[in-house]
Amino acid sequence: MKAEIIAVGTEILLGQVVNTNATFISEELADLGIEVYYHSVVGDNPARLENLLQIADERSDLVVLCGGLGPTTDDLTKDVVAKHVGQNLVEDYAGRKELDAFFTKAKREMTPNNLRQVLIFEDGIALPNETGLAIGIFYQSATTAFLLLPGPPSELRPMFLHHAKPLLEEKFPQTDQLISRVLRFYGIGESKLVSQLADLIEKQTNPTIAPYAKPNEVTLRLTVKAPDKAMGMKLLDETEAAIKKEVGEYFYGYGEENSLEAVVVKLLQEKNCSITAAESLTAGQFQATLANISGASKVFAGGFVTYAKEQKEKLLQIDAALLQEYGVVSEACAKAMAKNARKIIGADYALSFTGVAGPDELEGQAAGTVWIGLASETEVTAHLYHFTRDRAYVRHSAVMAGLDLLRRAVL
Amino acid sequence: MKAEIIAVGTEILLGQVVNTNATFISEELADLGIEVYYHSVVGDNPARLENLLQIADERSDLVVLCGGLGPTTDDLTKDVVAKHVGQNLVEDYAGRKELDAFFTKAKREMTPNNLRQVLIFEDGIALPNETGLAIGIFYQSATTAFLLLPGPPSELRPMFLHHAKPLLEEKFPQTDQLISRVLRFYGIGESKLVSQLADLIEKQTNPTIAPYAKPNEVTLRLTVKAPDKAMGMKLLDETEAAIKKEVGEYFYGYGEENSLEAVVVKLLQEKNCSITAAESLTAGQFQATLANISGASKVFAGGFVTYAKEQKEKLLQIDAALLQEYGVVSEACAKAMAKNARKIIGADYALSFTGVAGPDELEGQAAGTVWIGLASETEVTAHLYHFTRDRAYVRHSAVMAGLDLLRRAVL
Repeated sequence: MKAEIIAVGTEILLGQVVNTNATFISEELADLGIEVYYHSVVGDNPARLENLLQIADERSDLVVLCGGLGPTTDDLTKDVVAKHVGQNLVEDYAGRKELDAFFTKAKREMTPNNLRQVLIFEDGIALPNETGLAIGIFYQSATTAFLLLPGPPSELRPMFLHHAKPLLEEKFPQTDQLISRVLRFYGIGESKLVSQLADLIEKQTNPTIAPYAKPNEVTLRLTVKAPDKAMGMKLLDETEAAIKKEVGEYFYGYGEENSLEAVVVKLLQEKNCSITAAESLTAGQFQATLANISGASKVFAGGFVTYAKEQKEKLLQIDAALLQEYGVVSEACAKAMAKNARKIIGADYALSFTGVAGPDELEGQAAGTVWIGLASETEVTAHLYHFTRDRAYVRHSAVMAGLDLLRRAVL
Repeated sequence: MKAEIIAVGTEILLGQVVNTNATFISEELADLGIEVYYHSVVGDNPARLENLLQIADERSDLVVLCGGLGPTTDDLTKDVVAKHVGQNLVEDYAGRKELDAFFTKAKREMTPNNLRQVLIFEDGIALPNETGLAIGIFYQSATTAFLLLPGPPSELRPMFLHHAKPLLEEKFPQTDQLISRVLRFYGIGESKLVSQLADLIEKQTNPTIAPYAKPNEVTLRLTVKAPDKAMGMKLLDETEAAIKKEVGEYFYGYGEENSLEAVVVKLLQEKNCSITAAESLTAGQFQATLANISGASKVFAGGFVTYAKEQKEKLLQIDAALLQEYGVVSEACAKAMAKNARKIIGADYALSFTGVAGPDELEGQAAGTVWIGLASETEVTAHLYHFTRDRAYVRHSAVMAGLDLLRRAVL
C-alpha cells in the first residue's frame, strides 16, 4: 500500500507555516502499516493542484490531502478533487445540521460561503469535524483512495484520530497487525534517553522504538507487527520492561493524548488530595494548566497570582522584611509563598513559582533562574532550577517541573 | 522565476522529522522575489528521486534539494542529480582541505566514505559548509538551476544565508521587490471577513490579499511587487485603507509576530494604567497570557484564581448570599468578582471570568456560557458570551474576548 500526502496552501510555500500536518499524518499512517512515499505542497492554484493529483493518482494507492476545505474561494481542494474523480458535490446532512447549530448558538449570521464547508462528493464518506465546521471526505475511486482533511492542526488531528484512522484501518487491513504503545518521560532529554537506550534501539526490530522530543518531555513509540493482539502485547510488554530497566525513573505515563497534568490531576483525585498555587514567574500558567483537565475542580479550588512584590506581601501575607532580606527570587520567598498559600486556601499541597522569565536579569540573577516551593502538611521544600532559552520556554519548563515535583510528592 | 524545493530523507516520510528546511528556504526565496511553486519530500531511494527530478526539471527554473549529502550510502542526492544532469563528480579542492584539517584537529582517523562529502559536479560551484563537512553545490544546466544543500538545519541555514543567497541574488536578479504587511483582526470570523472583502480580494492583484485563520483571530497578508520600497509602501497603504473602510472596527494591530496581548500590554503601558483579574473558568490563563509579554510587570501586579465558590467568597470577599441567589455563572457574580479584585489589588482595571468550560453543564447552564466582568474607576459592566467547541477553545475564546474588552475600554 503506497500512500502520499499533499498539503494545499500558499502560506506553506511562502514559509509562513510549517507543514506539521504531513509529519503527523506520516506518523499515524506508519502506525497503520501504510507506507508514505511522498509529501508534496502546492499553493491555492487549481491547475497546479490538478497537475499534482494526476501524478499522485498514478503512483499511489492512497492520496491524503490537507487544507483548502474552508469557506473562501481560496479553499479549492474539494472542487479540484471532485472534478478530478468526476464526482458531484452535494450537501452533507449531518454536517449541515452542525453548521446551523453552530451559528444559532454563536448568535452569528451565517454567510452563504459557509455552506461550502459541508459539501461532500455524492459517493464520499463524510468525516465529522469535532473542532471546526469543514467536514472531511473519504472517497475510493476505481484505482485510488482519496482522503481530504482540513488544514488547521486543531481540526485535522482529532478528525484523523477519531474518524479517518478507524476508517483506513477497516478499509485497508494490513495482514500483520501493527500495535503501538506510547511511553512518556519527563526529566530526561531526548539525546540522553536515546544514548542510554542505544543498544536496545539498534538491536530491536520488532517492536521498533521511535523517540520523539516534545517541549520538556520525550515520548517513545513502540510499534510491533504481530499476527494477533496477544502476541503483540507480549512483545510490547517485554520491550517496555527492558526500557524501564534503563530509564524507568523518568517514566510517568502512557498514550499519545496523555499529559503530565492529566496524570497529576488523576493522581490527586485518587489520593483525595487538593492543590493550590502561588505564582509569580508563571503568572497563572500552572493553575490554568491544571484546569486544562476536565474534573480539575475536584482537586483545585483556587490560588494566587502574585507578580509584584507588594502583592506577595498583601495576598500571601509574606513578611516584607523577608522579601527585603532574601529577594523575591530566593529559597526563602518560594517557601513562604507555598506555605502561606496552602494555609490561606486550606489545601493539602501548595506549589509556588518565583524566578526570572527573562529576557532581562532580576535581582542580579540570570534569566532562567527559578525557585519552585512545595508545601505539604508535613514539610516545606524549595527547589532551584536553571532553565534555558526564551521566556515562554522558561515558564513552560517551570510549570512542568512543578507538576513533576507534585507527582512525586503525592506518590 | 519558478522554484521548487525537494527534501530527501526517509525520516521525514516516517513523521520523525518536521520539514522545517522547506519553510526556511521558502521564506528566504520569497525575500529574493523568487516564487516557490512546490515542496516535495522523497525517501532515500534513487529511482523515486530521479522520478521527482524529471518532473521538477520540466516545471521549474530552480530546484533546491536538501539532505542526502552526507558520507553514508543512504546519502544519494549528489549521485542521482549528477547522473540526471550528466555531470561527473570530482573532488573539490577547498572542501578537501577543510575535511583534512577537521580530522587532523579532531585527532580522528578519516574513513574513506568521508570523501563523498567533498565531491562536486565538474561544472558546479561549491558552497562552503561553515558548520559541517558536506559542501553544497550550485549547478546551472541548459534549462534549470540546481542547488544542493545539506539536511541538518544547523548546516543548511548558514550555508544558505552566507553563500547560496548572495549567489542566487547575483545569478537571478529580480526586477521587482516583494514586500509584505500583515494586518490582524479580532472579533470577526474568517468567512465573514472574506465575504465583506470579497470584491477587494477578487479585484486585487497587486498587492495580493491572503486571509489566514488562527484560533480566535484572522490575519490578512498583503504582498506587493514593486520596483522600489517607496512604491511598494504606497500600494500597501492604499489597500490597507480600503480594507479598513470595510472591517476597520475589528483591526487591532500589525505583524506576524504580534498578538492581542502584546497590543494590550503596550496600550496599558502607554496610558500608564494597571490591570488585575479574578479568574474562575480560565483559572489563571488570562493572567498567564498577559505575562507572555516581556514588560507585563509594569502594568500587572497580580490577581486571583477563584475556581471554587468558597474561594470567591474568601479571596474576593463576595457575599455568600449573592452567589446563592444568582449562582456563580451570572452577571452579578462577574461584576462582583471584577469590582472586588480591582479594589483589593488596587488596579485601574479588573477583568473577571466565570462560566462553563465544559464538557458538562454547570448550574443548569450549557458548556460555553461565559460572563466576563470589567471594572474601572467609573463603572462595572458584565458581558455574556456563548462559545462553542471544546474546553480548551472555550477558555481561549474567553481570554481573547477579555483582552479585546480591555483594549476597547482603555482606548
